[in-house]
Amino acid sequence: MQEFDLRRRCAAEALGTGLLVAAVVGSGIMADSLTGDDALALVANTLATGAILIVLITILGPVSGAHFNPAVSLIFALSGDLKRRDCGLYLVAQVAGAVAGTVVAHLMFDLSLLDVSVKMRTGAAQWLSEAIATFGLTATILAGLRFRREAVPWLVGLYITAAYWFTASTSFANPAVALARSLTNTFSGIRPVDLPGFMIAELLGAVCALSLMTWLLRPARPVETPTSAEVTP
Amino acid sequence: MQEFDLRRRCAAEALGTGLLVAAVVGSGIMADSLTGDDALALVANTLATGAILIVLITILGPVSGAHFNPAVSLIFALSGDLKRRDCGLYLVAQVAGAVAGTVVAHLMFDLSLLDVSVKMRTGAAQWLSEAIATFGLTATILAGLRFRREAVPWLVGLYITAAYWFTASTSFANPAVALARSLTNTFSGIRPVDLPGFMIAELLGAVCALSLMTWLLRPARPVETPTSAEVTP
Amino acid sequence: MQEFDLRRRCAAEALGTGLLVAAVVGSGIMADSLTGDDALALVANTLATGAILIVLITILGPVSGAHFNPAVSLIFALSGDLKRRDCGLYLVAQVAGAVAGTVVAHLMFDLSLLDVSVKMRTGAAQWLSEAIATFGLTATILAGLRFRREAVPWLVGLYITAAYWFTASTSFANPAVALARSLTNTFSGIRPVDLPGFMIAELLGAVCALSLMTWLLRPARPVETPTSAEVTP
Amino acid sequence: MQEFDLRRRCAAEALGTGLLVAAVVGSGIMADSLTGDDALALVANTLATGAILIVLITILGPVSGAHFNPAVSLIFALSGDLKRRDCGLYLVAQVAGAVAGTVVAHLMFDLSLLDVSVKMRTGAAQWLSEAIATFGLTATILAGLRFRREAVPWLVGLYITAAYWFTASTSFANPAVALARSLTNTFSGIRPVDLPGFMIAELLGAVCALSLMTWLLRPARPVETPTSAEVTP
Repeated sequence: MQEFDLRRRCAAEALGTGLLVAAVVGSGIMADSLTGDDALALVANTLATGAILIVLITILGPVSGAHFNPAVSLIFALSGDLKRRDCGLYLVAQVAGAVAGTVVAHLMFDLSLLDVSVKMRTGAAQWLSEAIATFGLTATILAGLRFRREAVPWLVGLYITAAYWFTASTSFANPAVALARSLTNTFSGIRPVDLPGFMIAELLGAVCALSLMTWLLRPARPVETPTSAEVTP
Repeated sequence: MQEFDLRRRCAAEALGTGLLVAAVVGSGIMADSLTGDDALALVANTLATGAILIVLITILGPVSGAHFNPAVSLIFALSGDLKRRDCGLYLVAQVAGAVAGTVVAHLMFDLSLLDVSVKMRTGAAQWLSEAIATFGLTATILAGLRFRREAVPWLVGLYITAAYWFTASTSFANPAVALARSLTNTFSGIRPVDLPGFMIAELLGAVCALSLMTWLLRPARPVETPTSAEVTP
Repeated sequence: MQEFDLRRRCAAEALGTGLLVAAVVGSGIMADSLTGDDALALVANTLATGAILIVLITILGPVSGAHFNPAVSLIFALSGDLKRRDCGLYLVAQVAGAVAGTVVAHLMFDLSLLDVSVKMRTGAAQWLSEAIATFGLTATILAGLRFRREAVPWLVGLYITAAYWFTASTSFANPAVALARSLTNTFSGIRPVDLPGFMIAELLGAVCALSLMTWLLRPARPVETPTSAEVTP
Repeated sequence: MQEFDLRRRCAAEALGTGLLVAAVVGSGIMADSLTGDDALALVANTLATGAILIVLITILGPVSGAHFNPAVSLIFALSGDLKRRDCGLYLVAQVAGAVAGTVVAHLMFDLSLLDVSVKMRTGAAQWLSEAIATFGLTATILAGLRFRREAVPWLVGLYITAAYWFTASTSFANPAVALARSLTNTFSGIRPVDLPGFMIAELLGAVCALSLMTWLLRPARPVETPTSAEVTP
């Protein structure tokens, strides 16, 4: 029933996560090099990230589902929409693609291949930010798929556009992207030592959203009521 | 006929209003901390607010109607599209959600739970701004529902994007959000003493829009003309 | 065949042009008061104008066609899509609405009702800018109506977003809005003495676009070929 | 089967490429004249370019396919979707339109007709940037046409919005536009001597995307399986 075989689905996950990270990291480097105003740099970073998300989810969604995010793949594995084996392969593809994305961004801006970040992002407020960022992202995806499937690329792009600004952590909301961002010592970086806190918070936020949305979106009555013919013994 | 029961509809109103306020207040704090240019801070605040509105109305609209705004719920109660009892519960949910949104924003940015605003927003020009802001919002919703129902999330998000800039009050246009913004002493705050003026102006603007739009949008002829069979006695 | 009577269509033209001018003038005042950077002020002015155009054309288009612009109404009168008498009344409504829009913006920002602009906008480069701005706007509308009618609000909003930046005149492209902008001595103003040059250039640009698009978009063959049954004598 | 004759298709390619270049060059001049902050100038340049791309591809796509880009036309010639002779004429129209676009932008801003750029854009990082920019653009177009044809204007506009920021070269991604930008000594210019490097990189990126996407998007099974009736001899 799956139109695309697993190899190509994993390729799509790797390609999409890679271009997403290249956009996040690259636009951070570009913005930082052009202005001294951090808000303006974040506006540029936001524009690039929101726009590329809409594009990538639209063009690769029909191939792999366009998760580009281990938290999202895990949610679909938990809800039974993604086989466990496929989920494992998706995660590998996402992490590999994400790291490649950082490398590509560095090469485009003439930096060394990888460079460990020294940017501190830790503490309860940051963790709460990541939990809420991923909670909102997951809720957006689940409700979007339920009500307006064709709009999901826009919903995710717009959600992240907002979340870059309303969370104190600028909303990583993605363990694979977080890992890749620990390997760049530029605008969008994060210290490797701060990764576990971010990743745990992200997964907790995603699981909370799955619980809440399962209750909130459940159809009120059985979707298909038996017709009189069917109940006749 | 309602697909979702009242409990979940109220939960959706609380969740949506809460995330909306968290986005408004949080992005204001973030922007203010990153730049000294107030126009740039308002650009960031606008981006976040417009984007999250489109997302929240799309994903929660099918559950509760996605009012997130007592002025909007009152208009639907007046026009008969929302039962009085439901309207009362919606208002409670919106106010509770809105205040929780301020708390969440404060926690994410490591501030005290609530903090009363000292930002003065009063006087005839501000009140006119709020009346016009809510007039336009209500007109947008009523005409949008009449002509392009599926576009309403976009219309509201874009309307507020514009209204943040063309009104002197930056367009609160929402009594529950205004109340929640009186509890944050940051970029988007408002003194509690200035709330009544804002709320009255907002409700007046909404009612004016309902009157005007009822006339402007009324079908020219009866929508359903009786067929010959039906008029036969 | 027209669903809405002429009175309501004129009311929609007045309301839409008024809110458009209020957004253009109001956002200019707001932006100018918040920053000393003219590019940032124009970004804010662009955001507000583009967003409100999409909203107003979507919600009032089904009532009146949502011209809000004498150049557009004249093009439709020339192409036979608008009766001459209706065109005259549309123009009156647009001018009245536009001036009211300036008044409302001034009241919201606590300025005197009207104030003649002293901002010079004249010379061949400005006139060419206006001609090209209106040429592009008209071409966008005509081709949009031919190929993607439901997308016209977006096309117009996005076109003006671009044209604010790529023309030296910031793309007024609208004689009624230009007139209303001569009555505000703020960011978006224009000296009354410079109006005739702008208006003539705008009308020339619109007529050029009508000629070119009539040729470019004409169906290659008769749209409805007679069936064999119909040609049988 | 083509609704529009070749003359009008070439006219559409020239008009579209011309307006695109006028928007890129014009908005660069405008932004540069209004601010000293290069990031803000690039934000404005990005807004104008993204918006005009969505408009032009929507309104001219049904006439000519709206390539506006020799790299795109070559890809369609390689994939058999554009006749060789038509491709040659498209290229001529695109280059002529692009140069005219620079002239029009210069006239609108009161500059000499053409002026050779002295802005250096060369080296491996720039070339990699152009290759990746055009790779992404081509992949976006090919996958967009396969899955969401009506969304292609948006996908291209949003992709370029992101790519302006995440590539070190600000993503020319278009040999005809690059040529036209070598003739303006303003914000968006490029030295003529740097053109070959850009053009070769762009074409390589486009061809790589064609290869990858041909594999990634190929239907898993024959799209139309024969019915039992058809296989009956």
